[in-house]
Amino acid sequence: MVAIWNYKTPGVPDEYFLTDENVPGPTKEEVRVITISKARLNEGDTVIDVGCGTGGLTVEAALQVGTQGKIYAIDEDVVAVKVTQSNVEKFGVQDRVVVKHGKAPAGLSDFPVANAVLVGGTVDLREILQIVQTKLVQNGRVVVNAILLETATMAVDELRKLGFKNVDVTNVSVSVGKQIKSGTMMLARNPITIVSALNR
Amino acid sequence: MVAIWNYKTPGVPDEYFLTDENVPGPTKEEVRVITISKARLNEGDTVIDVGCGTGGLTVEAALQVGTQGKIYAIDEDVVAVKVTQSNVEKFGVQDRVVVKHGKAPAGLSDFPVANAVLVGGTVDLREILQIVQTKLVQNGRVVVNAILLETATMAVDELRKLGFKNVDVTNVSVSVGKQIKSGTMMLARNPITIVSALNR
Amino acid sequence: MVAIWNYKTPGVPDEYFLTDENVPGPTKEEVRVITISKARLNEGDTVIDVGCGTGGLTVEAALQVGTQGKIYAIDEDVVAVKVTQSNVEKFGVQDRVVVKHGKAPAGLSDFPVANAVLVGGTVDLREILQIVQTKLVQNGRVVVNAILLETATMAVDELRKLGFKNVDVTNVSVSVGKQIKSGTMMLARNPITIVSALNR
Amino acid sequence: MVAIWNYKTPGVPDEYFLTDENVPGPTKEEVRVITISKARLNEGDTVIDVGCGTGGLTVEAALQVGTQGKIYAIDEDVVAVKVTQSNVEKFGVQDRVVVKHGKAPAGLSDFPVANAVLVGGTVDLREILQIVQTKLVQNGRVVVNAILLETATMAVDELRKLGFKNVDVTNVSVSVGKQIKSGTMMLARNPITIVSALNR
Repeated sequence: MVAIWNYKTPGVPDEYFLTDENVPGPTKEEVRVITISKARLNEGDTVIDVGCGTGGLTVEAALQVGTQGKIYAIDEDVVAVKVTQSNVEKFGVQDRVVVKHGKAPAGLSDFPVANAVLVGGTVDLREILQIVQTKLVQNGRVVVNAILLETATMAVDELRKLGFKNVDVTNVSVSVGKQIKSGTMMLARNPITIVSALNR
Repeated sequence: MVAIWNYKTPGVPDEYFLTDENVPGPTKEEVRVITISKARLNEGDTVIDVGCGTGGLTVEAALQVGTQGKIYAIDEDVVAVKVTQSNVEKFGVQDRVVVKHGKAPAGLSDFPVANAVLVGGTVDLREILQIVQTKLVQNGRVVVNAILLETATMAVDELRKLGFKNVDVTNVSVSVGKQIKSGTMMLARNPITIVSALNR
Repeated sequence: MVAIWNYKTPGVPDEYFLTDENVPGPTKEEVRVITISKARLNEGDTVIDVGCGTGGLTVEAALQVGTQGKIYAIDEDVVAVKVTQSNVEKFGVQDRVVVKHGKAPAGLSDFPVANAVLVGGTVDLREILQIVQTKLVQNGRVVVNAILLETATMAVDELRKLGFKNVDVTNVSVSVGKQIKSGTMMLARNPITIVSALNR
Repeated sequence: MVAIWNYKTPGVPDEYFLTDENVPGPTKEEVRVITISKARLNEGDTVIDVGCGTGGLTVEAALQVGTQGKIYAIDEDVVAVKVTQSNVEKFGVQDRVVVKHGKAPAGLSDFPVANAVLVGGTVDLREILQIVQTKLVQNGRVVVNAILLETATMAVDELRKLGFKNVDVTNVSVSVGKQIKSGTMMLARNPITIVSALNR
């Protein structure tokens, strides 16, 4: 018997994604799966992915919610939209994903209410979180990935101000082994702070 | 609309598991989801969980492989076996999970060949990995969670000796925010090294 | 020949300090020596230690500046003042250290201008940094040890607002090996963010 | 008053060292000061620096032991020897430092017995530690900086076999803030494991 991973379950290796040198991402595997976990997605859920970039989280969310789910991804960069759409098709989840070119928060207006919203750290984070709340069902989850010191603090502060519950802060530092002649060198990746919370 | 997480998708909060003060675990959420991701499980896969403890990984694997999958969990501690079984039932995956009381590697002998094997770090790691290889299909994955400096190194060394391919070493350090009066204190969890590889 | 460490050079093992169960600290060795390094102390320098706690940084600074230097330590907790004074005497640096009972920033008023100020994270951090600036020579250094997400961000923001130069942010995560029967378990300590800067 | 750091105390900023593109180092400030701290140097001590590279630890050790101390540095790369010598002169510690071109462990033979030995991780680590022990006074300290998974484990194992006492394992992960337009991005440096012990 030979095992062949068939692309249909969450937890995708980084190198499986199509990339573009001008688009950041994909979010690294370890951060992707923790982000999806923090979103507590059920099969059939609707998810909004704000600032989808390469589409790593878009694809993972699509795999997690299954054929009855729906993902709305948005990015202000038209190249990111194209790369995300390519990855959506590579993983065969185009039946359940809409990728839109637009800028958050304005661009979120025609998206339906969702069970979860994924947000990359951004300068407009406070305004985005305010709009995100209007797009979330009660007890819906928001998950913010912050790479800046300031966006982590801002996310915690704004989510508390907006009345979100169970604000969870998880800082993740990953280093990965690189095989060299004399052994396994551990190479660090930049730490990321994942802030998640439950809509009131 | 109110979102209620229904227990049926991977990515389980730590506090959802039943625990016993004498049994270690559950493996923390962040480490669980990375471990499952590294195992590259497909729906319908067979998985062996060596040293299941509280059953955190057993349950996650069962949720990931779906109703057509099969999980064989083993622990030498009879209390761990009971706690794992309780969690298997709490999450409603008893249709696809067998929990056995026994000591690895001997106790693995009556388990079928699997698509993936999950192993906690242990003093007998080398011997266990040798037997694990006989239980893995070609290209099947082994994932070792090492909390000791020595087991991480030992896993890398033994997997290379056994001809496993794509040996991947991922060290994960997580700290989580605790809300106190004056702000968010970051509390560190012990780092863990996740070593995974592909059977030749 | 037998080497005996004689207590007179910086880099003190944690267990050498006298402690009190009601006083936090000492700051761990690794964080202490990085903090002192970031302060760029010369022999003969004057240093203010705000919130001295157990006195770990007070003693290290005193060892670093030598017999011609001067350290002014302050804590609002009278027990902390006593513990710091005991450690100052244990390490024989009472000739160059003044420990004062008082609350920052008001209590800093009768301290002389200093070459460096060390500050623990605190709710009044912005106000303290404003007063600290008046106590620093030109190009004098402030070093803030932040254990809260918010104090790290606040320190960076306030120091920039106050015109400090070369704002340096260093996040340090340390884990230490504990020898158990089967190997070396790595135990994590809470991460700390060390923010330092140069007065204009 | 203007503070000017005068190069005479330990804790040197990375950018103060002369470098060569073909020579690794300097060891980063945070790791340097922890390494020196773990060596528990007294004024007047003798220190051997094995694999001195750019000379960062050589200079720090020289600053820590003062004018009565002595540092013997060795590197098998002649360019490293030159860079180290240049840094020794830049910091004005040539009175107390000998830099030798040679390969450890053989090259250590004509060095005197020392209070402490600093060792970079290397493939010949076991053999080097055996010779190092013969160069250490009773209770003298060895400090190994390991960047490979395997050298950390090997150092712990070999030091225990050789009867060293108080084997201390400290894993240090540092990330540093980079100011970008939207805030402070945290950039990770590779983790390092510092293993130190006391000669019997």
